[in-house]
Amino acid sequence: MPGPVIVLVRPQLGENIGKAARAMLNFGLTELRLVKPRDGWPNPSAGPSAAGADIVLDQAKVFETTADAVADCQHVYATTVRKRGVTKPVVAPDEAARLMHSETGRHAILFGREASGLGTDDVALARYILTVPINPEFGSLNLAQAVILTAYEWSRIGREFNADIDLVQPTAEDETLPPAPQSELEGLINHFEQLLDPRGYFLPEARSDVTRRTLRSVLTKPNWNHLEVRTLRGILTTLGRDRRD
Amino acid sequence: MPGPVIVLVRPQLGENIGKAARAMLNFGLTELRLVKPRDGWPNPSAGPSAAGADIVLDQAKVFETTADAVADCQHVYATTVRKRGVTKPVVAPDEAARLMHSETGRHAILFGREASGLGTDDVALARYILTVPINPEFGSLNLAQAVILTAYEWSRIGREFNADIDLVQPTAEDETLPPAPQSELEGLINHFEQLLDPRGYFLPEARSDVTRRTLRSVLTKPNWNHLEVRTLRGILTTLGRDRRD
Repeated sequence: MPGPVIVLVRPQLGENIGKAARAMLNFGLTELRLVKPRDGWPNPSAGPSAAGADIVLDQAKVFETTADAVADCQHVYATTVRKRGVTKPVVAPDEAARLMHSETGRHAILFGREASGLGTDDVALARYILTVPINPEFGSLNLAQAVILTAYEWSRIGREFNADIDLVQPTAEDETLPPAPQSELEGLINHFEQLLDPRGYFLPEARSDVTRRTLRSVLTKPNWNHLEVRTLRGILTTLGRDRRD
Repeated sequence: MPGPVIVLVRPQLGENIGKAARAMLNFGLTELRLVKPRDGWPNPSAGPSAAGADIVLDQAKVFETTADAVADCQHVYATTVRKRGVTKPVVAPDEAARLMHSETGRHAILFGREASGLGTDDVALARYILTVPINPEFGSLNLAQAVILTAYEWSRIGREFNADIDLVQPTAEDETLPPAPQSELEGLINHFEQLLDPRGYFLPEARSDVTRRTLRSVLTKPNWNHLEVRTLRGILTTLGRDRRD
């Protein structure tokens, strides 16, 4: 299994991007993506704090939106320190690492900006909430520390899986298709919205954002594969038609 | 079990002492000991980087030698990035944490100075070598990162042991609702069929059974709960309406 993609959403200090790169490479992760880094990219402050993890910085890719950054990923995790009022499965770093080593497809972990964390819209993109169980009276985890704990667990759990490789037989799992990439899921959600909007589903306007997020969560949960998404697109095209009788 | 004592041997920068204190408190560790801190103690640089973990710094004790610092401890671990040519058991952070939660007596973890790590005499004091399994081609772990990984494992393994550690637990299932009963799922499938049938979705007739089965399996897979099914029923009712524009 390739390691997860680490996505830093609107990071502020280049120094923290460098520290995150160092934490990643310590445990063998190399794919870094940046969504709208505040000070642009490349950032000269990143290199020194990466302490030699230049390969990670050199290969980092920049995106305009979080959705673009995870468009090719099947499994998206939103890292938050505290639980939010969202109905998504909440996993700890070790549980997330087990998913990453057992579910096919690309995995991406979103980390929010230093002070404020991920925004609601970024969290809405994710299938899982990744929360580090932390001292409730002192939950001050910085960006690089959050990255190193998830990278460490990915590496540690990977050894558990490798240790078992000789014992575990290939199963029926490889016959099922992997989940569709995020871009296909976005296409499905957009299709729903295009049909629902002119029919007044997102009214009143004041509730519109909540309604859109609910729609997104309901459609994100199933983990549909490419064929299933295609079936649903066909259903929506049919529903957009007039009745024949 | 009380948490392990964290012993920083000859630390150089006050800033790193502060970061180590912060990492400790994040996972509920509070007992910090310093052996010959280079710039004396208290150190005004430590406070700001502790980011609020003042209780750890305020209670920190200073010792002249490593032997003094661990004199009251039964189990001493020497943290090293690389294994040394010493004949002691080498444990990873999770294995060390298991020992800490299962062996009675006080446990102490030694961390060396930033650049050079622990000296041979310090390692000689320890019963175990604690080594973080790290990328062999990039093993650059700083002091606070080494501390946070061991503190994290102490906390994580503690939950396995059902120790009374008051941390926020990630809850995967108990907060999310159970899947909706089959009757609700049938209601949803019927609703889809009622909308799709008059629009010709199940034609040609010869393929109708297969198409219905595909629809059913796509809608069965998600395991939607009662609220999610209700949301989807609302969506279908809306889609059955005419456009407003």
